[in-house]
Amino acid sequence: MKICVLPGDGIGPEIMEQALRVLEALRGDGFNFEVETALIGGSAVDATGTPYPEATSKAAKAADAILLGAVGGPKWDTLPREQRPERGLLAIRKELNLFANLRPAILYPELANASTLKPEVVAGLDILIVRELTGDIYFGQPRGVREENGERVGFNTMVYSESEIRRIGKVAFEAARKRGKKLCSVDKMNVLEATQLWRDVMIEISADYPDVELSHMLVDNAAMQLVRAPKQFDVMVTGNMFGDILSDEASMLTGSIGMLPSASLDANNKGLYEPSHGSAPDIAGKGLANPLATILSAAMMLRYTFNLEAQALRIENAVKKVLAAGYRTGDIYEAGTRQVGTREMGDAVIAAL
Amino acid sequence: MKICVLPGDGIGPEIMEQALRVLEALRGDGFNFEVETALIGGSAVDATGTPYPEATSKAAKAADAILLGAVGGPKWDTLPREQRPERGLLAIRKELNLFANLRPAILYPELANASTLKPEVVAGLDILIVRELTGDIYFGQPRGVREENGERVGFNTMVYSESEIRRIGKVAFEAARKRGKKLCSVDKMNVLEATQLWRDVMIEISADYPDVELSHMLVDNAAMQLVRAPKQFDVMVTGNMFGDILSDEASMLTGSIGMLPSASLDANNKGLYEPSHGSAPDIAGKGLANPLATILSAAMMLRYTFNLEAQALRIENAVKKVLAAGYRTGDIYEAGTRQVGTREMGDAVIAAL
Ligand SMILES: CC(C)[C@H](C(=O)O)[C@@H](O)C(=O)O
Ligand SMILES: CC(C)[C@H](C(=O)O)[C@@H](O)C(=O)O
Repeated sequence: MKICVLPGDGIGPEIMEQALRVLEALRGDGFNFEVETALIGGSAVDATGTPYPEATSKAAKAADAILLGAVGGPKWDTLPREQRPERGLLAIRKELNLFANLRPAILYPELANASTLKPEVVAGLDILIVRELTGDIYFGQPRGVREENGERVGFNTMVYSESEIRRIGKVAFEAARKRGKKLCSVDKMNVLEATQLWRDVMIEISADYPDVELSHMLVDNAAMQLVRAPKQFDVMVTGNMFGDILSDEASMLTGSIGMLPSASLDANNKGLYEPSHGSAPDIAGKGLANPLATILSAAMMLRYTFNLEAQALRIENAVKKVLAAGYRTGDIYEAGTRQVGTREMGDAVIAAL
Repeated sequence: MKICVLPGDGIGPEIMEQALRVLEALRGDGFNFEVETALIGGSAVDATGTPYPEATSKAAKAADAILLGAVGGPKWDTLPREQRPERGLLAIRKELNLFANLRPAILYPELANASTLKPEVVAGLDILIVRELTGDIYFGQPRGVREENGERVGFNTMVYSESEIRRIGKVAFEAARKRGKKLCSVDKMNVLEATQLWRDVMIEISADYPDVELSHMLVDNAAMQLVRAPKQFDVMVTGNMFGDILSDEASMLTGSIGMLPSASLDANNKGLYEPSHGSAPDIAGKGLANPLATILSAAMMLRYTFNLEAQALRIENAVKKVLAAGYRTGDIYEAGTRQVGTREMGDAVIAAL
């Protein structure tokens, strides 16, 4: 099994190191792997002038799965568009056809206090957001800034084809089938024709999933309902742009986004796995970052790409044990628990395996 | 002063009745008005076959300000696109050039418990969201569903011109100047060229407002920060689509959207005023609905269109008194307060004037 490792920027390298140590500790348990490390994001720009170098593209294509740390930082914010770190992320998603982004928003009971929401509103929260990742206004043409009547006009195109909607819809229905059997599709069909098509196709697909209860919600209402009563949701499916917004909102409901992994899959379950949080340049290199989202991303990789459910569960249970034992990095620390650094957290997970 | 009154659907007529009674009670106090009532939304479809009849358009154009209840309901959800109630809303906004949507998200101290967020996170919340309302992907061309390679493809266009951005930017800077002098502009400049232009123009405008502190936030981060630490915001400004989502999210942070008014203004402060909540068909006609958001919308009308600051404050203070005295409609009721119906709430406000 070939894993392409992309540590990226900021805290990326240090959290990745712990995820790799955890995988190393599992080696042998039905699981062997090779690692190829490559550059992405700002560190790739620094070394090669581009955020997604040819060598990285090659390594990613050759691998079965990709594990990514984080990209970005103020250092690269003023670069021209094509050289910004996040371009690397968009490029790898598109090139490898990673259209299905799975983002769980789970509140661990031990971390209930971290949420800004009242405990009764979020206790037991377990939402899976399925976000389409290679279409929509992110990649739609035409796009740009043109001159019109003597002024600048900026434009982008939201576009979805039936087949794009159908393939992400199927992923979402399958996921719902394995969970609470409730799927909420989010659109803005009362205004946008592209999302009216989205809703129509979701309804068509639902005929093949009589065991899954499909509902629909407008995106503005979904943004409200996530705050009002988030536990009403099981699986949510939506387009790239709305998914960007709603998945971040949902993850912040937990108050502990340092805990949340993500997967971005192609049609054959090749995937890119990364924590939902950013590169946190302010604490980079200090050994303070929370490696658990990256470790849990490695678990998702074992589950989705390598079909190693038991090993994925071993990691997830080890993380739960470590939380139960009171280990906390700074981002999730509260009085009465034991504050540890990045590496000690990795040690604790390995010990708990 | 000519007010065009559009009660609309669901609870619209009953909440409007109370707002008009409150205005009636102020008659004489430097303020005289004429009312012309017209149809909009589903009730207009029922009577005339269209959600924005010619007669309504005429009445709205002839008036100085428009007071609207709410539109929509399941009854009209299956109608063809052009006949859906919300088309009436989109049409009047566009026809009257109501480009500046002001949506306060205020948490009244007496209602702090209504929020799903912890009291310390939302106590004292007072955000003003300035949403552009006549541009963006809501109205952009081309749009529709076409056939391509034997499948349907849905598409919409996000588009903003420099002058559209500049005029809403100015409204937002002026509003910030009168409040906490902090303006956060929300975009997705790392992906969308249209919103890169948005950010560029906001920076250009800021030169004229050295006393206002301008910051920028990506829309996904804004959706998170509203949950994480909403009190960091004073005024937020964003486009039509992002504003739709973020203003609803922000209003739900208060837990009491039955309290929140809104204004939609043109370049001459002619405006449409309406509650932020919907038409609540489930409780329509029962005398249970909360009229306060509509009453507070009438106060916004006095302030923005008629320049009657003192009278606007009289209404707002009356609403505060009524809350302090414990009056509550069902949506904001909690033990120890006094539950009243729509009309009794109107009575209480009038008594407190
Ligand atoms: C960095 C950015 C381009 C990216 C996105 O918008 O998709 C990020 O916000 C995410 O959600 O992974
Ligand atoms: C009803 C709908 C068209 C409308 C919008 O999306 O603008 C509503 O959600 C609003 O925010 O006023």
